[in-house]
Amino acid sequence: MTKDQALSLLAGKIEAGRALDMASALMYWDAVTLGVPEQSLSARGAAAGWLEGESFRRFIAPDTLEAVETLEALSDGLSERERAMVREMGRAYRKAKAVPPEEMQQFGALVAQAEPVWEKARETDDFALIQPYYEKIFDFKRRLCYWYGYQKHPYDALLDDYEKGADVEMLDGFFALLRERISPLVKMIGASGQKPREIAGTFPLDKQRELTPWLCAFVGYDTARGKVGEVQHPFCLTASRHDVRITTKYHAGDLLSSLYSVIHECGHALYEQNMDEELEGYGLAECASMGVHESQSRLYENMIGRSRPFAGILLPKLRELFGGFADWDEDALYRAVNIARPSLIRIEADELTYCLHIIVRYELEKDILTGAAQVKDLPGLWADKYEELLGLRPPSAAKGVLQDVHWSGGMVGYFPSYAVGNAYGAQLMHAMRKTVDVDGAAGRGDLSPVNAWLRENVHRHGAMNEPEELLRRATGEAFNPSYYADYLSEKFTALYR
Amino acid sequence: MTKDQALSLLAGKIEAGRALDMASALMYWDAVTLGVPEQSLSARGAAAGWLEGESFRRFIAPDTLEAVETLEALSDGLSERERAMVREMGRAYRKAKAVPPEEMQQFGALVAQAEPVWEKARETDDFALIQPYYEKIFDFKRRLCYWYGYQKHPYDALLDDYEKGADVEMLDGFFALLRERISPLVKMIGASGQKPREIAGTFPLDKQRELTPWLCAFVGYDTARGKVGEVQHPFCLTASRHDVRITTKYHAGDLLSSLYSVIHECGHALYEQNMDEELEGYGLAECASMGVHESQSRLYENMIGRSRPFAGILLPKLRELFGGFADWDEDALYRAVNIARPSLIRIEADELTYCLHIIVRYELEKDILTGAAQVKDLPGLWADKYEELLGLRPPSAAKGVLQDVHWSGGMVGYFPSYAVGNAYGAQLMHAMRKTVDVDGAAGRGDLSPVNAWLRENVHRHGAMNEPEELLRRATGEAFNPSYYADYLSEKFTALYR
Repeated sequence: MTKDQALSLLAGKIEAGRALDMASALMYWDAVTLGVPEQSLSARGAAAGWLEGESFRRFIAPDTLEAVETLEALSDGLSERERAMVREMGRAYRKAKAVPPEEMQQFGALVAQAEPVWEKARETDDFALIQPYYEKIFDFKRRLCYWYGYQKHPYDALLDDYEKGADVEMLDGFFALLRERISPLVKMIGASGQKPREIAGTFPLDKQRELTPWLCAFVGYDTARGKVGEVQHPFCLTASRHDVRITTKYHAGDLLSSLYSVIHECGHALYEQNMDEELEGYGLAECASMGVHESQSRLYENMIGRSRPFAGILLPKLRELFGGFADWDEDALYRAVNIARPSLIRIEADELTYCLHIIVRYELEKDILTGAAQVKDLPGLWADKYEELLGLRPPSAAKGVLQDVHWSGGMVGYFPSYAVGNAYGAQLMHAMRKTVDVDGAAGRGDLSPVNAWLRENVHRHGAMNEPEELLRRATGEAFNPSYYADYLSEKFTALYR
Repeated sequence: MTKDQALSLLAGKIEAGRALDMASALMYWDAVTLGVPEQSLSARGAAAGWLEGESFRRFIAPDTLEAVETLEALSDGLSERERAMVREMGRAYRKAKAVPPEEMQQFGALVAQAEPVWEKARETDDFALIQPYYEKIFDFKRRLCYWYGYQKHPYDALLDDYEKGADVEMLDGFFALLRERISPLVKMIGASGQKPREIAGTFPLDKQRELTPWLCAFVGYDTARGKVGEVQHPFCLTASRHDVRITTKYHAGDLLSSLYSVIHECGHALYEQNMDEELEGYGLAECASMGVHESQSRLYENMIGRSRPFAGILLPKLRELFGGFADWDEDALYRAVNIARPSLIRIEADELTYCLHIIVRYELEKDILTGAAQVKDLPGLWADKYEELLGLRPPSAAKGVLQDVHWSGGMVGYFPSYAVGNAYGAQLMHAMRKTVDVDGAAGRGDLSPVNAWLRENVHRHGAMNEPEELLRRATGEAFNPSYYADYLSEKFTALYR
């Protein structure tokens, strides 16, 4: 195979993948935003399965490897983008090929069965229902570590699926630092006796719907190259660079839920919209990692959306839309959106305690993989760790070990990306502040300098660089979680001192 | 190739085609009902093109023919469905293969260029703009007749693309009958001096939106296995047997526009929803022809929706929703929805004069194909024929020869299906009336006996039988357009006598 043949073959595969992915994305959007006739689910599932399978079949065909190897052999004669394409396709190909096809198929069937069982287990608070599925899923994951291979710790093999470059050594250090720095803050807050005023009341959905475009404009998410849908569980979806959609869910009794979910999804959407379009032809218009994606959503949601300057422009907007808020001042609003309080449910956790929820999951996943813990003991171990880290013991498995869909969805090694994303975000923010007046921008309601910095240093590069290299280029140093610990420490000490 | 191999190969192709078609359908729905970011059009077009191309590439691969020939050779050992599948796939394969691929590609590019030019020509009333495109398109169609082959008349080859079994011999007879029977009716109406009262006023869109579900329920279109969208140009779209969607467009000043467009699309949707699900695996859950599809929409729209019994249940509903209508009675409403009046625009034509518009197009297409007429002379020829058939001369090409998208869309031979559909519908209705009290059903607002008859005799069979065989089985005789001529004659003589 010549270089040109190899490049053209991979380009064809990437084009096919883009078409199939766009079709899958838009079919998914159709289903979750518009609802789908109950009786059409089976035909739709079959079609969605075929499209996804076709994408995989094309990728896993032997000529992909032949092209990758052809190009690897002449790496010096390739452009930077071509090299990155070969690196990413080679990695993905070899990982996919490492798993025996019949095992992969069985695992797919197992996961398809497990998800509804998990829902039932959570509804009926019955861990025993899902236990055998978790056991089989973790068994498969243990074999997966073996098939993938690893240098030091089996968990490293799984982490790489979600967070390239992350391993147990790095995460042990990261989470030890967070334990050490967050726990005293949580204790300090508990001891402070402070009870910031909370936002309460009813907030009409039509007014909340009016707030959303204002929030999108604030973040800089271009709704003319996307749109906003309403769903049960908000997400961001990419049909193409110029069609990146977000979703939200409005709750009349909870103003902040949709407000921060919109800012969060706008952060994701901005990353997707700002990737260089030319990267698409190389299959590199993708996030560098789940953690990098999450760093963008959380940077906008927490570091900007929950900042004191933003409270200054949010308060008049809330007064205009909802009336009331006459007896609020900007400081009170700032405190109200930053109430920190240990809780049992990860997705409802505040900025400060969020990573403690992740530590619980990280430690349990690692121990189960190595055999240091057993699936059957998960409910008790989970409760113990919550008591240790958050000072609360779940009253039930439903409010404990059964709260997340990830394991029944076959995702082991995913949780750490959420925490790593927070730390990436803080490190990026620290570097950005050297040249950008972030507070001034947030206070003026014009984030263009922030967005320009992130576009140039993060967004536009897509998957050109792995997270570590991306961080090094953007911030001048390797991953350094102390920026995140410092940020939390300063912010919450000031809030609750 | 063994029989089992051949069947399994075709089943795989059909499954792939269904998945790709569903994806294309839902992407189209997404675009037209929700709107699409302007800048995303190019990526979306590329993906849609890839999906459609992939569907064709899979179908046209040589193993399709090998499987078809394997099964043709042992036709006796096949089930009825397998035989129909082989017949349809063989026909489509050989037609597709008859066209040199580079010619097909050039034609695709030509049509893609022609459509925007046609829009501009119509806007600026400048036939010269589109003339060279029409010339190339008709040139291609002439070569297509040669590639397809034909027995008697070149036009026969093109008609078969839309209306299996229809040919010039049949259509010449059909249209001669319509000329002979409709023209006197049009003259009689003109001479009668009658001016039925017209529905005028403003009809709030939200009330029109409330009318739609009532209309869907009346026809029997199951919205739980579909949904209704709003678009510029209404259509019916099938994602799967259990997800058949219709669309409409509301006009505040024109109550009847959306009302009859909804009934029309419901007729299409009912056909799609009622096809036997088992036919899907054979690629036979398709309409028998464009004409048969149109027969269903027009049967519901005109023969039931514009019937005297329906006026009896429509009037109270209109009173309830819109107020007013106090000084209307059922007869006046029946007359108002059946106003017949020669006009220049096909898609706005009434039931009586509609087919005259088709005759103009049929005669012109036929003459251009044989060389008896030239593209450059179309505007004048068009105007002459309108004057002859409808007594009106278009004041411009925009209101004449430029009104239809079909030719610039590369569709020559399509128009006759609209007229044939009307005649199929009348023949089916005549047969149905032998056992079904159609008027009673329409007057009670319960069409279930009508729907049951059509499901059993038409809908459930999909593409199992060609139109002629379908008609023969359903009505006991071959295509007989005199039922349609009789129906028009009786209806409009009574209305205007």
